[in-house]
Amino acid sequence: MKLKAKILGLEAGGKSVVVLNKEDAEDLSVSSLERVRIVKDNKESIAIVNTATKLIERGTIGLYEEVRTALGLEGEEEVEVEIAPLPSSVYFIRNKLRQRKLTYREIREIVRDMVRGNLSEIEIASFVTALHIFGLDLDEATSLSRAMVETGNTLKIDRYPIVDKHSIGGVPGDKTTILVVPIVAAAGLTIPKSSSRAITSAAGSADRIEVLMPVSLSLDEMKRVVEKTNGCMVWGGSLNLAPADDMFVRIEHPLSIDPLLLPSIMSKKKAVNANLLVLDIPTGRGTKVKTIGDAELLAKDFMELGHRLDIEVQCAITYGEQPIGYAIGPSLEAHEALSVLMGKTSVPDLVDKATDIAGILLEMSGKKNGKALALEILKSGKAEEKLREIIEAQGGNPKIKPEDIHIGEETFTVRSGKSGYLLWINNSSLVEIARLAGAPKDKGAGVRLHKKIGDVVRENDPLFTIYAERDIKLERAIDRLEESYILGVGERMEMLIHEVKEFPVPKKTFMLER
Amino acid sequence: MKLKAKILGLEAGGKSVVVLNKEDAEDLSVSSLERVRIVKDNKESIAIVNTATKLIERGTIGLYEEVRTALGLEGEEEVEVEIAPLPSSVYFIRNKLRQRKLTYREIREIVRDMVRGNLSEIEIASFVTALHIFGLDLDEATSLSRAMVETGNTLKIDRYPIVDKHSIGGVPGDKTTILVVPIVAAAGLTIPKSSSRAITSAAGSADRIEVLMPVSLSLDEMKRVVEKTNGCMVWGGSLNLAPADDMFVRIEHPLSIDPLLLPSIMSKKKAVNANLLVLDIPTGRGTKVKTIGDAELLAKDFMELGHRLDIEVQCAITYGEQPIGYAIGPSLEAHEALSVLMGKTSVPDLVDKATDIAGILLEMSGKKNGKALALEILKSGKAEEKLREIIEAQGGNPKIKPEDIHIGEETFTVRSGKSGYLLWINNSSLVEIARLAGAPKDKGAGVRLHKKIGDVVRENDPLFTIYAERDIKLERAIDRLEESYILGVGERMEMLIHEVKEFPVPKKTFMLER
Repeated sequence: MKLKAKILGLEAGGKSVVVLNKEDAEDLSVSSLERVRIVKDNKESIAIVNTATKLIERGTIGLYEEVRTALGLEGEEEVEVEIAPLPSSVYFIRNKLRQRKLTYREIREIVRDMVRGNLSEIEIASFVTALHIFGLDLDEATSLSRAMVETGNTLKIDRYPIVDKHSIGGVPGDKTTILVVPIVAAAGLTIPKSSSRAITSAAGSADRIEVLMPVSLSLDEMKRVVEKTNGCMVWGGSLNLAPADDMFVRIEHPLSIDPLLLPSIMSKKKAVNANLLVLDIPTGRGTKVKTIGDAELLAKDFMELGHRLDIEVQCAITYGEQPIGYAIGPSLEAHEALSVLMGKTSVPDLVDKATDIAGILLEMSGKKNGKALALEILKSGKAEEKLREIIEAQGGNPKIKPEDIHIGEETFTVRSGKSGYLLWINNSSLVEIARLAGAPKDKGAGVRLHKKIGDVVRENDPLFTIYAERDIKLERAIDRLEESYILGVGERMEMLIHEVKEFPVPKKTFMLER
Repeated sequence: MKLKAKILGLEAGGKSVVVLNKEDAEDLSVSSLERVRIVKDNKESIAIVNTATKLIERGTIGLYEEVRTALGLEGEEEVEVEIAPLPSSVYFIRNKLRQRKLTYREIREIVRDMVRGNLSEIEIASFVTALHIFGLDLDEATSLSRAMVETGNTLKIDRYPIVDKHSIGGVPGDKTTILVVPIVAAAGLTIPKSSSRAITSAAGSADRIEVLMPVSLSLDEMKRVVEKTNGCMVWGGSLNLAPADDMFVRIEHPLSIDPLLLPSIMSKKKAVNANLLVLDIPTGRGTKVKTIGDAELLAKDFMELGHRLDIEVQCAITYGEQPIGYAIGPSLEAHEALSVLMGKTSVPDLVDKATDIAGILLEMSGKKNGKALALEILKSGKAEEKLREIIEAQGGNPKIKPEDIHIGEETFTVRSGKSGYLLWINNSSLVEIARLAGAPKDKGAGVRLHKKIGDVVRENDPLFTIYAERDIKLERAIDRLEESYILGVGERMEMLIHEVKEFPVPKKTFMLER
């Protein structure tokens, strides 16, 4: 059928989508969400069909940008449209809904079609829901990891070993990477670290690192930095390493599920050809993994999956019931990390965690007394020196000082109404406050804690300060304070956390941060 | 945040969707697929957010038609936009993903939000996938049925009993309704029958009935027809009875799953206030229900759900391994049904099935010897007379004759290559051929069988004829003949059905017809 192209001037989130008049669709025997093949001269595109009754006239076909670009169309040209069969991958997804185990070949087809934009949101949502409910076995996790590597770029650096670290996330203020990378690189190991931006948190590693240096590097630039300095700290988003991951996250996030945690993380590591990996699993109330038993089960799965992908994995199960350090929000965290690296301030839990993780990597690569070595590199200033080398190689200002970092000027300090000890901190409420104040978009926004768990608190002591760049956002954060249980001060035997008086809508959170 | 409205001129399939520039979305702390509240004067709308990087400029908000209409906007006016919390229904869906049983209150909230356009395709897809995998228990099925009734119109006719019939579908050529309604109405029972159009079949009941009379009636018109003639045969789509069903089907269809079969059917029956229902469950290879044991399990569920909804249900487990009668496609089927009602032709299986089902309804309402009575009403011409009354009341031509029905003039007849018996018919291949020939859009398109299972076939005997209205569609259907296994002719001991030589992509079909 010949139809006149109508450019809609809208993106469809990476998917190939067209809009047909309902009657034309019926003439083509194609229903909403089935596919058509569109041909223009020697170019063709398979697209998912939406139908419209009024706003797309008979004889026309509305094209989203992805399809317009694929066909190289500029104006209202005529195209040939015919029904296209369902991709095989859709049948494989349907088999998964019937609890069939998928083969490597089938999983690769699903991932490929998704990356090409040939699967609808409905199909991807149903697939990830089925994976969430049935779980992935190790064969499927391996297949998914490999398929996600194959459908993206890979980093090739001719060194051995390539080391990497990763946290499954869920703890606010975790700026460990900013210390670990320079320590490990200063010790002579190669660590091509890529990080993500925040999805639901107040700052992703890429957001906080960006305060210190540019992070949107190309794969070639990343390679050059690593070859020069042994390390880098870049944003993964522009590298196209395992791009399928971002597409899965886009669908998983609104559902608050995360079935692809293992293959997503491991595919990114395989894509940089890592040989040794330490995986941080923050554990405890307010994190993704609530108990040490669960953390060990997860560690076992990561280690076995690593084995299948030729990556040696060790896991660090870490305490995650409160933020790391005192600062939450991109600039506040960058400020804290830089100050620690320069020896200007003491943040014991941050230093402890960073040297633990760096120490494990040093020992995995054959060095002795890893933690002591890491601590020495940090104290001696070699880590700071290495950080500045990396900053310079990535195009930043190697002389940056903590005072150069802009922190939001709108502030509000919450003080304690009573005396006692700080008993608990609600990580997710703290993150919500920081986000309402503007983080991670407004880099200077966030929260700074004045007390941590176990600290003595006197009446009227400051508990935490909210920072914002704009007063309207500060107000928004302050408004939320009254509804939230953020931290608890009391004597050690106070048992009541809060009362449930109305029928609750449980808003269990699950933080997707890879 | 104040943004300038940009009218996109596109529908979003009933959902409230807006498109924000990515930076504006970040300033609002809202991610793709989260919600915003949009206020203009005294009108407001909650909408799901999509983001765009290039094609929606900063400071503007792209509105799909549903939102534009809700706000009553015409041009590029300024609107106030703020982040809106996730609807509670999304949390209830997330709980279902964790296998929590949902309460009535939670299910009603999900259905309401879906009908209002407040749930995204991703959320609905995930919900129906979870229902498919976990299954619905009877409490949830009851809650869903009631919620689907509450969110739509209901038909109120002051009579008792109101009777109804329904087939779960899956058998091509099933024009039983066109006989049952007039038989039952002629016997004095009240049967307000609504039917659906084809989704994956060659003709839905509404498609085939429309050849004989108008079917797009309003609820008031439907009521008037039933009060006058005891019966009606209308399309359910314009009545808004349980509209949630259509929304679920739109998502289920591309996934080829049907978890809401029971509540969807029963909600439509409850919405017309039916008291007695006979449910036809076609059974056997090539239908939805493969074995009699499965059919009995399904029957039990329907009867129990009916009990909870105050509908007395009896089930007819019927033979479904080949089409009913000889005709497939709207006009061919209407022609066959009208000819049988007029006593002009003999189609034993159709008459048998129609009088069985009518007979059950007659006995459920207290009459004796139901099947014999139904047969007598059919043979005496009273059923034909009643059909013509209904046609007239619905605005059709009561004098319609089979010859008046237009059948496609492009034909192709497939003949047998050998002698033997007709051993099997592949229902779904037959449906595919009829659809490629143009059915149900082209009402005159379809397939007419010349043989049915068990018939003696001699070499070169005609097996079936394809009818089309346009030669290009006839060609399309003929092209598919070579790839398909449509029917099997042979001696009774021939065991091989077909060989699997290449790695197969199993395209198991599941027909959603409610």
